[in-house]
Formats: sequence, structure tokens, C-alpha cells
Amino acid sequence: MTQRGIGRAGNAINGRYRFVTGIAMKTLTELIGTALPIVQAPMAGVQGSALAVAVSQAGALGSLPCAMLAPAAMREELAAVRAGTRGPFNVNFFCHAQPEPDAARERRWRHRLGPALREFGLDPAAIPEGPGRQPFDEAAADLLEAVRPPVVSFHFGLPAAGLLARVKAMGAVVLSSATTVDEARWLRDHGADAIVAQGLEAGGHRGIFLGNDLATQQGLFALLPQVARAVDVPVIAAGGIVDAAGVAAAFALGAAGVQAGTAFLLCPEAKTSALHRAALREADARGTALTNLFTGRPARGLVNRMMREYGPIDAAAPAFPLAGTASGALRAAAEARGSGEFSPLWAGQNAAGCREVAAAEVLAELARGVPPGLLARGGH
Amino acid sequence: MTQRGIGRAGNAINGRYRFVTGIAMKTLTELIGTALPIVQAPMAGVQGSALAVAVSQAGALGSLPCAMLAPAAMREELAAVRAGTRGPFNVNFFCHAQPEPDAARERRWRHRLGPALREFGLDPAAIPEGPGRQPFDEAAADLLEAVRPPVVSFHFGLPAAGLLARVKAMGAVVLSSATTVDEARWLRDHGADAIVAQGLEAGGHRGIFLGNDLATQQGLFALLPQVARAVDVPVIAAGGIVDAAGVAAAFALGAAGVQAGTAFLLCPEAKTSALHRAALREADARGTALTNLFTGRPARGLVNRMMREYGPIDAAAPAFPLAGTASGALRAAAEARGSGEFSPLWAGQNAAGCREVAAAEVLAELARGVPPGLLARGGH
Repeated sequence: MTQRGIGRAGNAINGRYRFVTGIAMKTLTELIGTALPIVQAPMAGVQGSALAVAVSQAGALGSLPCAMLAPAAMREELAAVRAGTRGPFNVNFFCHAQPEPDAARERRWRHRLGPALREFGLDPAAIPEGPGRQPFDEAAADLLEAVRPPVVSFHFGLPAAGLLARVKAMGAVVLSSATTVDEARWLRDHGADAIVAQGLEAGGHRGIFLGNDLATQQGLFALLPQVARAVDVPVIAAGGIVDAAGVAAAFALGAAGVQAGTAFLLCPEAKTSALHRAALREADARGTALTNLFTGRPARGLVNRMMREYGPIDAAAPAFPLAGTASGALRAAAEARGSGEFSPLWAGQNAAGCREVAAAEVLAELARGVPPGLLARGGH
Repeated sequence: MTQRGIGRAGNAINGRYRFVTGIAMKTLTELIGTALPIVQAPMAGVQGSALAVAVSQAGALGSLPCAMLAPAAMREELAAVRAGTRGPFNVNFFCHAQPEPDAARERRWRHRLGPALREFGLDPAAIPEGPGRQPFDEAAADLLEAVRPPVVSFHFGLPAAGLLARVKAMGAVVLSSATTVDEARWLRDHGADAIVAQGLEAGGHRGIFLGNDLATQQGLFALLPQVARAVDVPVIAAGGIVDAAGVAAAFALGAAGVQAGTAFLLCPEAKTSALHRAALREADARGTALTNLFTGRPARGLVNRMMREYGPIDAAAPAFPLAGTASGALRAAAEARGSGEFSPLWAGQNAAGCREVAAAEVLAELARGVPPGLLARGGH
């Protein structure tokens, strides 16, 4: 075990001076090159280059989520980010293993969703393929090499060693999310340069990749200090952070930086749908829950009819991302009739903290919670 | 809706200056009369007067849990606290409605636990009654009136209006726990003078009393600021707080005080069993989960064989506290053979933060995280 100075709140708040075996650990801003130790969480489906650019231009790390982009769209979006900002940015990928399709399971699942599918005029036996979620692969690495992004982040672990080596060879700083201390240690041992500690409060997909037991998932108050003690790379706190107070609390608990996603969902730079925005405005009344109904993996979203009637968790859902075929068709049909009740309305447990302001204004609020000693001199 | 100054992290950290409609809200220390804005969480079964006295003498609010005490023991323990400290103390009760026994459900439950019961030589059809959990009642109020405790706290809501009026007439400050914003508003509307915001990280029984959907339960990062915004009484943060950093983070998120329980489990003043202490020393490896197997209500404890083999949640468990009859017998038989694998090993998600030191030393560590402006001048 390495020794490090943790201990007192006074030191923990001033996360800049954390030492590992006598050698000062890089601060997050030194590692990623931003002025602010703040990462905009990549949110596939609800944002693209516009939000990434706005955040990057405002001094934090903007993120481009690529999990739902076909190659041509990915190339365009990468070019838009590269052209839109001179600051560092992050490109995000999922790195799940694609499951074998299971026809019997898929049939049972469509039968289960049958009443809702038929309500919206869909034939459970004839559902069209929708946009899937592709894991990071050689083709994506080819596209990245043309852009050489300063930071690349992964969800659900890390890609295979050869693929990860290609990313590292581009000079990219590599991030990934941990939902347990074991996952944090695994990521650190397998090449992550910084680790996102994803508290149970977080919106969207849980990054869980070692096991699938949701009972292991911890609130940020517990996960963050445990991860910060367990690894000797910068730890970025995620989950429920929507304002300066949340940022200050995360640094008090030993964070080297923070990641915020939900806080940006109502920004004009996000592509959040009108239905999703409307649901966010009533976040207090709806509440959130973890659900696997939309994709096959647990993810946090605002409660809607889909979650009330079919879950929020159903062990019978096809493996990620295959559950998305039927639920995606259902969602599209319901949205066409003006209903968000079958849509994934991803949001964290502090969704009521969303404000309808520009991304730069969200960042200005978050930045007020950063200990002054952790703001980079100069920035990009 | 009342207006109040929340906003900036700088103000939130200095929780002393929070205003409601222009009138300064009492600080927690003003309300309960302690030097420190710290409450020792009542932990029925693992602590009694000794820990309450030690904490009270050290300047925080010590708590005597009465849920598992018969009247004679309660009288003795109350006298011991009254005699042991001149400082304020808290007396804690459960206030659940006793369920009607359901013979068929009980039979099914014993059948389900049958293999484990027989392994330890127990006949599922002939299980002796163990110590139960009594709700607060007129007899308990009689005992309290002889002692007039400065603070009385409740779990699972509040007692009926007449009983609560008796407690208020004694001059006691009344606390109760909320696990959702709706519960916080309900408690405030029904007479709570301060509210414990119990994050999902917390050990022991969830205080949940409006509904029973665990998907509504929030991490402290989300629950605490939401409750602090929703009610105009002091909010005490609970869940995963074991050190100065956790205390500092809670105050950053708008807490008026903190409650810590797990942090005291290894203190010599606690009655934590040797088996429970041994499990706490391997908390990192075990992890925790919410389980209803031991009592019928969800509570967080270290994972053991009972939780792995039968749950951790089983909707078939008898209603609280009746599930405790069979599981209590199983626990006693297993413990008699030196095993804690069928015992409730209550602990929060930061159980690895437990230290084997005197309660006063735990408090000294926690106190280092309190903003200086919130320490009472003088104290008791």
C-alpha cells in the first residue's frame, strides 16, 4: 500500500497538495490542461459538439459523447469540436462487449412490452432496428487519430489493451468511471490516468463493469473518499453535483475535480428534447430511479410510465444494448404522439437543480465552489 | 413558499446565517443546547447509556435508543444517562404501527428460512419469541416524564398527535428522520423541531415512512440540499459521515448539523458485539447492502451469509418487526456457535472509517470539520 496524506479536512479541501510516496500527484488541471477542474459529463443522445465547445471555451473540459454516433456523424462532430475551441476537450465512448442476440429472450421481452407497443400502433413481431450503441473499436480509433483529442473517456471499463494503447499513443489522457473501490483500483491498474467516482446520485448509465449487483452502488459521500484513498491518480467526483455547494462538498471529500451532467440539460447548447426538458421542469414531482428497461443496463432517469408499469428494473430485459430495440421503437412511437412517458429521461437525483441558462453560466456557478488554490493559473 | 438565502457555497458553508422570511433560524446548537452541532445516532442493540453519556460529556448530543428496551431496562438506562452527564441528551424511539400477526405469512417465512434454521438445530415450527421492537406509547411517555429529556427523537415518522403533545409538554426538542423531501415537509408540518436528512449511505434502519419504494431513496449529496431548501427548521445530515472531511462536506451542502452512528461502533463505550466488531474490521471486503430480512424493514448492514442466501431484500418477509422473530432465533443460535453470518451487522457505507478509539476521540475528529462560526460559545 502506498502512503499518502489524507487525514484532516483542511488538507482534503486543499486537494492540490496530495502526495503519493513523496511525489506530488498532478492536479487535474495540470493533467487535462483546463483552467477549471470541472468536466462536463458526456451525455449520449442529449448533447453533441455544441455543448462540448461551449464548455471548453468557458475553461472546463467539454465532452463529445460518441456511443450513439455512426462513423460519418462522429467525423463531423469531432471536426466541429476541433474547429470550435482551442481548449482541451474529451471524446467519450462506451466499451461494453456486444452480446450475442438471444431470439427467445427478445421474443419474451416484446411480449412483455406488448400492451404498450400495441397501444402505440406497433406490432411486437415487426419492430424496426433503431440507433444502437456501438463499443469503441478500431474504426473509431482511426477517426480519433485524425483529430488527436486531448482527453478520451470510457464508460463500462476500458477497451481491450491493444485499442487502449492506440489511444495512449495519440497522447490522450484517459478517463473512466468507477462505481466501487474495486473498479477504481482495476481502472488504475489498467491504465486510466484519472478516475470518475460515479456516486449513486448520478444520471444516465451506471458505469458498473465488475459485476452487476446494484446493492454494491454507493452514494457519493461514501464512494468518493474511499476511491480517493484507494488510488494514486486524480479522482473526479460525479453524481448530484449541480451547484457551487456541491462542488465545495466534493472537494471537501477529497476530489481532485468534479463532473456535472444533469446541470447542463436545460442549457440551450444541449440537444435535450422538448419532452425531456418539460419533464426536467417537474423533476421534484417525478423523482428519479435506476432502470434497465431502456437499454438493458441500469441508468438513472426521471420516473415515467415506462418505469412505473414495467420496472424500473426487470431482469428479463435483453442484454445491453439489445433492450433498446423494442424500447427505442416504443419511445419513438410515443414521442411521435407527444408523449415522453416511454422515453429515457436521464437525470441525476439533483435534477431539480437544472437551470435554463447558458452553459457558461452553469460553469460560473460551479466554479464558485472550487477551492481558489485549485484554479489553474492562466488556463488554456 | 418561504424565501431564504441559499445560493452561494460561501453562504451555505456558514450555515449559521440562514434566514427565513427575515427571521434568523435558530442554529442547531441554540436549539439543542450542545457545544457541538453533532448528534450521535441512536443505535438500538449496539449501544446504551454508556455511549450516550460519553458523547454528551464531550459536548455533542448523546442518544439513548429505547426501541428494544423493556420498561424496567428503559427506566434504568434513562437514570444512568441523567446521572452520567450534565449536558443535553436525546432519547430515541421507533413509532411504527404494530402489524396484525399473519400466521400464513409467518409459516411461509419460516419455511423459507428452514434450511438455515435446521442447520443451527432450530425447529421452524417451534421458534421462541425474542426481544421485539416496541413503538413509543403512553407507558414510555410516563417514563420520560420522570426524566424530562432535553431532546426526544423518533424513527419512522412521529407518534400520534396526543403522544407527541405529551413529549412537547415536557419541553423536549423533537427530532425525526426524513429520507425524501416529502417526508421532511411532513415532519416539519407535524411538529418536528429539526429534521435528520438520512442519506442512502446511512447504516441501520431507513427512516422511510411515507411509502416503501426504495427507488425513492437518495444519496446525501442529493437529499441534503433538497431538504435544506424545503424546510425552515435545522437539517441534520446523516449517512456516511465518519470524519472531519465528511462533516465539512455536509456543512457545504447546507447542513445545520451532522449525525454520525457507524463512526462510534468500535468505541469501547458501545456495546457492539465481538462478532459485529470483527465484521467491521473487514468492512472493505464485505461491503454493505440494504436488507429487510432481519426485521421486515429495510436497513443497511455489512453483507453476510443471511443477506447473500436469502436476499438482501425479500418481499415475503413478515411486516416489521415480526420478521425478527425467526431471524432473531436464527441469529442467536448462530452466534452461540460463534458465527455472525446470520446477525444484523448494521453499518453505513463508510464503515471502513470506523476506528477503535474512545467516543471523545471520534468527536474530536468530527469537530475538526465543523465551520468555526458554528461552534457554540461556552456550550453546556
